[in-house]
Amino acid sequence: MKSLVDQVQETLLMGPGPSSVPPEVYSALSQYSLGHLDPFFIQIMDAIKSQLREVMNTTNQITLPMSGTGSAGMETVLVNLIEPGDSVLVLINGVFGGRMKEIATRLRADVDALEFEWGTPVKTADVKAQLAKKKYKLVAVVHAETSTGVANPVEEIGKLVHENGALYIVDAVTSLGGMPVMVDDWGIDALYSGTQKCLSCPPGLSPVTVSERAADVIRNRESKVPNWYLDLNLLMNYWEGATRAYHHTAPINMNYALYAALKVVLDEGLANVWKRHAEVHQYLIERLGELGFTMLVEEGARLPMLNAVVIPDGVEDKAVRGRLLNEHRIEIGGGLGALAGKIWRVGIMGHTARKESVDRLADALKQII
Amino acid sequence: MKSLVDQVQETLLMGPGPSSVPPEVYSALSQYSLGHLDPFFIQIMDAIKSQLREVMNTTNQITLPMSGTGSAGMETVLVNLIEPGDSVLVLINGVFGGRMKEIATRLRADVDALEFEWGTPVKTADVKAQLAKKKYKLVAVVHAETSTGVANPVEEIGKLVHENGALYIVDAVTSLGGMPVMVDDWGIDALYSGTQKCLSCPPGLSPVTVSERAADVIRNRESKVPNWYLDLNLLMNYWEGATRAYHHTAPINMNYALYAALKVVLDEGLANVWKRHAEVHQYLIERLGELGFTMLVEEGARLPMLNAVVIPDGVEDKAVRGRLLNEHRIEIGGGLGALAGKIWRVGIMGHTARKESVDRLADALKQII
Repeated sequence: MKSLVDQVQETLLMGPGPSSVPPEVYSALSQYSLGHLDPFFIQIMDAIKSQLREVMNTTNQITLPMSGTGSAGMETVLVNLIEPGDSVLVLINGVFGGRMKEIATRLRADVDALEFEWGTPVKTADVKAQLAKKKYKLVAVVHAETSTGVANPVEEIGKLVHENGALYIVDAVTSLGGMPVMVDDWGIDALYSGTQKCLSCPPGLSPVTVSERAADVIRNRESKVPNWYLDLNLLMNYWEGATRAYHHTAPINMNYALYAALKVVLDEGLANVWKRHAEVHQYLIERLGELGFTMLVEEGARLPMLNAVVIPDGVEDKAVRGRLLNEHRIEIGGGLGALAGKIWRVGIMGHTARKESVDRLADALKQII
Repeated sequence: MKSLVDQVQETLLMGPGPSSVPPEVYSALSQYSLGHLDPFFIQIMDAIKSQLREVMNTTNQITLPMSGTGSAGMETVLVNLIEPGDSVLVLINGVFGGRMKEIATRLRADVDALEFEWGTPVKTADVKAQLAKKKYKLVAVVHAETSTGVANPVEEIGKLVHENGALYIVDAVTSLGGMPVMVDDWGIDALYSGTQKCLSCPPGLSPVTVSERAADVIRNRESKVPNWYLDLNLLMNYWEGATRAYHHTAPINMNYALYAALKVVLDEGLANVWKRHAEVHQYLIERLGELGFTMLVEEGARLPMLNAVVIPDGVEDKAVRGRLLNEHRIEIGGGLGALAGKIWRVGIMGHTARKESVDRLADALKQII
């Protein structure tokens, strides 16, 4: 029987992730597997930790890729920092803020949520008012809301959170590698990301970083972390120190790919990468504007890498996306929740963030519509 | 700067996993990424579920690869089935039985453990006596104890567990694809495995299957599964049914690799694969026997794919393993816990299970010792 995988067609991935993958990363993926305690693999692990610190702009000792996708990173940060009854504030303006609330609730935290209209950013004045009312153990927000294309004012919120004395948790799944993410400067205590967005590595790992202050909280928990697989206390014995103790078998080849993907980003230079995303974002607005498309999010709050494009009247959401995929091998994303059928989510992330991607999409849309 | 990953050397992986990977699997790993909701990727997901059912000898509807390594599979099964206060019996004769107890305890189950000497199998008479004393919600055992090389009598234990009325949980991380694992015939209610042992796929996914009886227990929980990432109720909406709802972004390329690895196993035929493992196991005992090595585990309880070899007096554990790796690019595993320094763990799993692997190891050992 012919292998299905041999029949996979190259696709321009312009949805909300995964993004298209550069050749160096595919090549690293298929490099020979090593043992998870092989000294050479440990050298690669150490290199990845350094690369991640550089991309995240942090000196945090605890900086590593978790062996799961972005959602596992979210769960890692919350399950390690939360104990039952802890007071948690989640700022919600899309699917992923909602997911943080759900996870924190399952962990039996005392969760408050401030909700903002989808497609608009978190309002710092509301956050300030809420933080004046109550002391929290932690405050969590999504930097780049992948469900709406909104950038939240993470730096400003950080200042308010620290005045409150809370730990500051940021979801950088979609932002990391596509716009500034300044962990130390912004006072972020725990941050997680994914590999399949602006890092342009296939999904499978979740980079996480934890400040010394948050690490102390984890070390001094009253109860053990209820999730063994994601317990950072245990993981540190594998990812840190002179002797590396077996915890779980790290996804060897996925780590090769992450190493190669981070190298691509750092070789180009972070500032250049951010600039490229911003420029291609402007180019996308321009090209789609010529076709009559408008943006959901107001200028100033738009993410460069994830563009919420309003579907014009008379344009069939699913039919057009289906034709883009089947006839042009271009994937774009549909809306989620209340925005389903109303927007497309067009990703220009990492390797996808090139003018030629935008041209292919605009040309295809012109043909179809 | 030269890429570290480009400097990885091909290594014969004869440790406790990962095992060496066949070319078809490397090639699948580096196939073009698709979106996680692309209809063609969903076709691959469906194919993987069918392949897994075949390899596991089950018709269970809920059969899928979890997006984490084997330990995530262990956590999946336990976190979905256990609610606080549930009575759980864990049978322990090595590291991985101990890990099940640890996870169940963190989930606030009421955990009893029957412990057996490392290097010997679980005694069914003791299990029978314990089950006569107390009614359990679930009983858990490791099929192939990777830490000791012991095969536990999973089929016999299954009968006792069902007389008790408990759910039967089996760890098949190391056994699946290397010896018979008969989920339906043996009355197993939940089983998990890993990709990096006898399936010869790099680590990163954990195949899991759940019986209809166990699925009912999961559907009718009083409390939500405390682990969002591993919640099978949510995952089923992504892996099953006509419309696939986004849960997390599946590790696309790892799934390609698993598909290819399962195809290699099924193309050879399960019976042939088991026979090959058994034959190479005998050949290993013979070749190492000529060099004066003996086995830790008594005949009859030995695993074919994971061989606990007693380190003879005068042979330096770490020095010899280091020379095997550095001079011969052969990895074997050391002992864990009380067996550290006393045994080597020699894996002949999947693609590694060939006489030429054994010859390379025996020839290298002859040179070194």
